[in-house]
Amino acid sequence: MIKQRTLYGSIEIGGTKINCAVAETIQNSKTIPSILKEKKIQTKTPNHNLNEIFKFFNQYNIHSLGVGSFGPIELDKNAKNFGKITSTPKIPWRNFDLLNNLKEKFSCNIYIDTDVNVAALAEGKWGFENELQSCLYLTIGTGIGGGMFLNNKLLHGISHPEMGHITVKKHPDDNFEGVCPYHVDCLEGLASGFAIEKRFGKKAQNLNLKEKQFMKKIISYYLAQALSNYILILSPNKIILGGGVMNLNNLIIDIRSNIKKILNDYILKKEFNEKIDQYIVSPKLGKKSGIYGGFALCVFPNN
Amino acid sequence: MIKQRTLYGSIEIGGTKINCAVAETIQNSKTIPSILKEKKIQTKTPNHNLNEIFKFFNQYNIHSLGVGSFGPIELDKNAKNFGKITSTPKIPWRNFDLLNNLKEKFSCNIYIDTDVNVAALAEGKWGFENELQSCLYLTIGTGIGGGMFLNNKLLHGISHPEMGHITVKKHPDDNFEGVCPYHVDCLEGLASGFAIEKRFGKKAQNLNLKEKQFMKKIISYYLAQALSNYILILSPNKIILGGGVMNLNNLIIDIRSNIKKILNDYILKKEFNEKIDQYIVSPKLGKKSGIYGGFALCVFPNN
Repeated sequence: MIKQRTLYGSIEIGGTKINCAVAETIQNSKTIPSILKEKKIQTKTPNHNLNEIFKFFNQYNIHSLGVGSFGPIELDKNAKNFGKITSTPKIPWRNFDLLNNLKEKFSCNIYIDTDVNVAALAEGKWGFENELQSCLYLTIGTGIGGGMFLNNKLLHGISHPEMGHITVKKHPDDNFEGVCPYHVDCLEGLASGFAIEKRFGKKAQNLNLKEKQFMKKIISYYLAQALSNYILILSPNKIILGGGVMNLNNLIIDIRSNIKKILNDYILKKEFNEKIDQYIVSPKLGKKSGIYGGFALCVFPNN
Repeated sequence: MIKQRTLYGSIEIGGTKINCAVAETIQNSKTIPSILKEKKIQTKTPNHNLNEIFKFFNQYNIHSLGVGSFGPIELDKNAKNFGKITSTPKIPWRNFDLLNNLKEKFSCNIYIDTDVNVAALAEGKWGFENELQSCLYLTIGTGIGGGMFLNNKLLHGISHPEMGHITVKKHPDDNFEGVCPYHVDCLEGLASGFAIEKRFGKKAQNLNLKEKQFMKKIISYYLAQALSNYILILSPNKIILGGGVMNLNNLIIDIRSNIKKILNDYILKKEFNEKIDQYIVSPKLGKKSGIYGGFALCVFPNN
């Protein structure tokens, strides 16, 4: 049987930039799609961005379009506002009807989920030698979010996860109040790239050595708490840490060792205890988990 | 087609008591099993209890036996120690090979999962008018645990959830150190029945009015934090609160209102915002979610 090769489109909508890409791939394929063309644009207002997005994809005859967006988004297909962005702190995008606005511009199939959910799907399906039974993908960037791939599906319930907003215990040396407009000192309010910038008055890459050490101590404390909680609640088979904040030298090593201290030999699984460097890992798809995620939605529409 | 009625056995193994029951039911049935006979025994040593359990079930010709036990238990069917209790604080049961010891006594099919997972399965399948897409079952008793039913399956990954042990922020008025032997001041260490007893030097039912009010303030603070985190991470379609601590007058009402304060209109779902009294509920199967859970494992072995 000759498998039909098809053109798919992927859009990754983030708080600072939007990535668009086109790839040729095969339905139900275990092979990573090969990207033919890619374009990055700055996130501005929805209407401005949608025109740029349309201009890019209009050059190709795409069969389906997979969209991974920051949330919260209404993902209940039976809801009146299916595909609409809801209570985001990003004001121009609050209550923006993303899916229907895309549908007005594109006549192909459109699939939509959160940026982190689609990244979890791509990493779970294509990131590792064997497809994973489950994996948790986290982004620690401007914001913090997580998506869970489990038994071939993305975790959805009453809504999609918003696990960047969980409560954490304050580090005793941290006097910073927090920046989340909804919860002030939730995980995202204390440990996101935006929180780091506000705490020090400059971006992480511009901190001096002493500030960087302090920041790493604080951030790894919060992220280790959060990851310990995710492990105790979701029991993922692998945890994948993406996002700009994870570029900080050795942050992942500090997070791993803090998690071991917190959980204190309660989880007696050798995948966790003996091979934590293979359990808590960087994205196998590098910085492209999100953009591959859009393709994964097209290739596995019944995830 | 005449459906075969079959005798099933269920064992609910808790820290203070063990329930055994026999019911007649139909495979894949949407009807709640009718319990024919039930027996409660005190939890003592594994060998003592196993003899009592065998004596009870030996009177019946049971087709399958469903076991819901406190954890942690190894539930990976491919693991050498599948069905073994691992790092429990209950010393006589630590490292007890529960499944193989049961197999030595019983020749029927045996299914095993955690007490809270099986309760989630029973509540999800039989508790509500329509089967739920997902539900989170929590027990707040001597210990705290949670099980998640999702898309017709119980959530398992590298292990089963151990969500009673998540970290929580300390209430500013609470000077109690915590009682968890692994994590000291995790949720179970601060808000379980055992923690209440140790904090006040007496059982919850013996507290005077002032102590009771203080205790409710503290406990609802911790449980609301935990539930908010579970909602943000798991996005369950319903949350069911069982266990002895939930018998405290109106505790569920305080928990609901504290969750609303914590989440602060971030979750824009009407099931949550407008109908929280139908979203966070008491078990529909009353105190029997756990024992029905064992039957649910027999009726839906591929959950």
